Amino acid sequence: MTTSPSAVLAAFASQLRYEDIPAPVLRRAEDLLLDTLASILAGANARPVQIMAGYAQAMGPADGPAEILVNRRRSSPLFAAMVNAAAAHVVEQDDVHNGSVFHPAAVIFPPALAVSQALGLSGRDLLTAAVAGYEVGIRVGEFLGRSHYKIFHTTATVGTLAAAVTVGRLLGLDPERMLNALGSAGTQSAGLWEFLRDAADSKQLHTAHAAAAGITAAYLARDGFTGARQILEGPQGLAAGMSRDADPSRLTDRLGERWALAETSFKYHASCRHTHPAADALQALMRDNQLGAGDIASIEALVHQGALDVLGPVVNPATVHQSKFSMGTVLGLIALKGRAGLAEFDAALDDPAMATWRERTTMTLDPEVDQAYPQRWIGKVKVRTADGRELSARVDEPKGDPGNTLSRAEIEAKTLSLGQYAGAARPEELRELIDTVWNLAEQSRLGPLLAA
Amino acid sequence: MTTSPSAVLAAFASQLRYEDIPAPVLRRAEDLLLDTLASILAGANARPVQIMAGYAQAMGPADGPAEILVNRRRSSPLFAAMVNAAAAHVVEQDDVHNGSVFHPAAVIFPPALAVSQALGLSGRDLLTAAVAGYEVGIRVGEFLGRSHYKIFHTTATVGTLAAAVTVGRLLGLDPERMLNALGSAGTQSAGLWEFLRDAADSKQLHTAHAAAAGITAAYLARDGFTGARQILEGPQGLAAGMSRDADPSRLTDRLGERWALAETSFKYHASCRHTHPAADALQALMRDNQLGAGDIASIEALVHQGALDVLGPVVNPATVHQSKFSMGTVLGLIALKGRAGLAEFDAALDDPAMATWRERTTMTLDPEVDQAYPQRWIGKVKVRTADGRELSARVDEPKGDPGNTLSRAEIEAKTLSLGQYAGAARPEELRELIDTVWNLAEQSRLGPLLAA
Repeated sequence: MTTSPSAVLAAFASQLRYEDIPAPVLRRAEDLLLDTLASILAGANARPVQIMAGYAQAMGPADGPAEILVNRRRSSPLFAAMVNAAAAHVVEQDDVHNGSVFHPAAVIFPPALAVSQALGLSGRDLLTAAVAGYEVGIRVGEFLGRSHYKIFHTTATVGTLAAAVTVGRLLGLDPERMLNALGSAGTQSAGLWEFLRDAADSKQLHTAHAAAAGITAAYLARDGFTGARQILEGPQGLAAGMSRDADPSRLTDRLGERWALAETSFKYHASCRHTHPAADALQALMRDNQLGAGDIASIEALVHQGALDVLGPVVNPATVHQSKFSMGTVLGLIALKGRAGLAEFDAALDDPAMATWRERTTMTLDPEVDQAYPQRWIGKVKVRTADGRELSARVDEPKGDPGNTLSRAEIEAKTLSLGQYAGAARPEELRELIDTVWNLAEQSRLGPLLAA
Repeated sequence: MTTSPSAVLAAFASQLRYEDIPAPVLRRAEDLLLDTLASILAGANARPVQIMAGYAQAMGPADGPAEILVNRRRSSPLFAAMVNAAAAHVVEQDDVHNGSVFHPAAVIFPPALAVSQALGLSGRDLLTAAVAGYEVGIRVGEFLGRSHYKIFHTTATVGTLAAAVTVGRLLGLDPERMLNALGSAGTQSAGLWEFLRDAADSKQLHTAHAAAAGITAAYLARDGFTGARQILEGPQGLAAGMSRDADPSRLTDRLGERWALAETSFKYHASCRHTHPAADALQALMRDNQLGAGDIASIEALVHQGALDVLGPVVNPATVHQSKFSMGTVLGLIALKGRAGLAEFDAALDDPAMATWRERTTMTLDPEVDQAYPQRWIGKVKVRTADGRELSARVDEPKGDPGNTLSRAEIEAKTLSLGQYAGAARPEELRELIDTVWNLAEQSRLGPLLAA
């Protein structure tokens, strides 16, 4: 009897041990956890998140062992994970895995934290479970392929399975029960892109649903509830229903050798990803040439065609969201403030100085940059200085990508910025949070991260 | 601006009034409610239902306004609906709408009851909301078509939308919010047939998930959470992702004139539907000729090819479930006991008399029966009596189909049988339950149906 890819994945997730995971992968998992907690706190005031928090209060227990970070209430792990997951994706500052077009953190860490708190598990338990969720989820996303992503929001659909695996690992499911958890997760897998057309709130529902359905699948499996044994690749399974180019070989691709978690990218600037390469190049240019904002007369960003398509139409941004698609605003913030975070964008909208920076900034198609895209996102800028010099700089990989990942100092700075953005935590609390995460592997029993 | 089918459905569901619904449709809705309550009680002891009830206890509030019928606990409407929905489908005695291959009752009445109890709504509110759920759900099932049903369990996928509409009507959503509820429901729509291959427990998860996701969608919409405006027919909506033969004209087919609720079938015998026509014909034959079991020497059932395909291989059933696919067992129970209910099948498995009845029973392909199928399920039997006569009988529509629906006396008998099957209710409680449902339209405020 051959072993199905679903069964191989279930066994891997069930049997993965902390000791099997290379130290850099574990440290990256800690980085991702902290990054996610910051994203959750930054989303605290968003309307859809507040509605979800109200729903949790209406339907869930009024108290419990798991922490709803956005309002410091406590509930059962189901509702804590739902609300935290709804908040994790809303400011669009969470991680992404390029190959699978999947945002794993938003659907993996909220259930991981909630269930670890509920069961009093250790930091190593949480890290091991999260790694299992990343490895399985990313491979399922790659398996379902491009045709799936055209209609379905992969973070929602694959997220259900990634969450189930994460929680299943925390519950100590054996391979057989883990396979049942996969079956019960896959048969709840849902999430359509149709909401984009109406700018509706579904993205927040998608991460909440994935987290909740994953928890449900894993807890039911623990108690003996059975599911389909080939939910991914079976003739009436996920790929049969929701993909036309599924590649089963991706499911088990170098399992235990290739660590897909380490392939995810962080978002550093709070703007459209197409602005990031030029923003990084401008930062490098100013640093290397010791320029201040007043030294810059004009900036030319050398970009790929996709950047022109998406950013070109944004000349006079009317909303904060639109300003994140304005190259002039982004580069102006880098020049003036040294950073382009959530708070900087909020303040920039009505700042007349920004109009000046938009006039100073042009974009030009660059053949080298364009050809390298999308495998590589090269950043190039040319700057004419006030005293007439022409300077240029390039970065080969934007900050946050795997080859140019964020340093711990940069992640801490992002955490302090995002964590205070919505007033959800004080700086001293965030510093404690940072300490807790950096020492996670030494924590024997996870409790609440913030005071109630 | 044209109005989309999704918007037309949302407006219909939002604006449907009790007074608009013909009395026979309301009475049929009461029949279906009672039938569902009985099915829920009959499923009380099933392992997947008990696991789901344990999960509700672990994650939900320990008390609340909504009733978990299978264990008489109380919780929030979310968990009461989840557990009751898990129980409603497990003994396979709930209703079916042939054209949409959708079992509406299991996903509509559990949330309808739970939310009505939580909000203290009236019996008329519940009936109106359930009718809205049936009318929308059945049309969405017809819209998604045969290609959808090949991979997806329609009761799960469409059930999410039917539940959301039902709850949305109870919450008094205006057309705009009802459209948002449809959007949030459709983007959680899930359920794959893959579990059938492994006889896994997913069917119970599917109805629970549909009920829960529908409640979530409607409550979020009430509080201003938005969803896709064309989740059904949009280019990245439900049909785009999960159907290849969707027919949008079905969505609004004679809305408000054709009452799809009245097209659903009840299940009367607790056996495979392919045995029902012959069982009914044998009942008629015995009644018309005043035969007892001892008068029957042999029985020939004249059937369609599908019945031979499904029932033919079952010669010596090894399990109770398999015995429900044995024509000889079914006709033997009709002859000996006058009925083929859940309890009769449990008792029949080890009864040596049944082997005799299986030997006495044959099936023959009948051209007329076969040609009429599947539009009409004609039942024909020939009986040779102990004293050498040859008798025959036919029924043109099996009991439970819309043209030969169950009388209230028959529904009461089914309720008493199913309700006691798992020991979940006493006969006097069931008689009270029957009274409550027959007088539902006069109830101004719904409370618990059974004592805690």
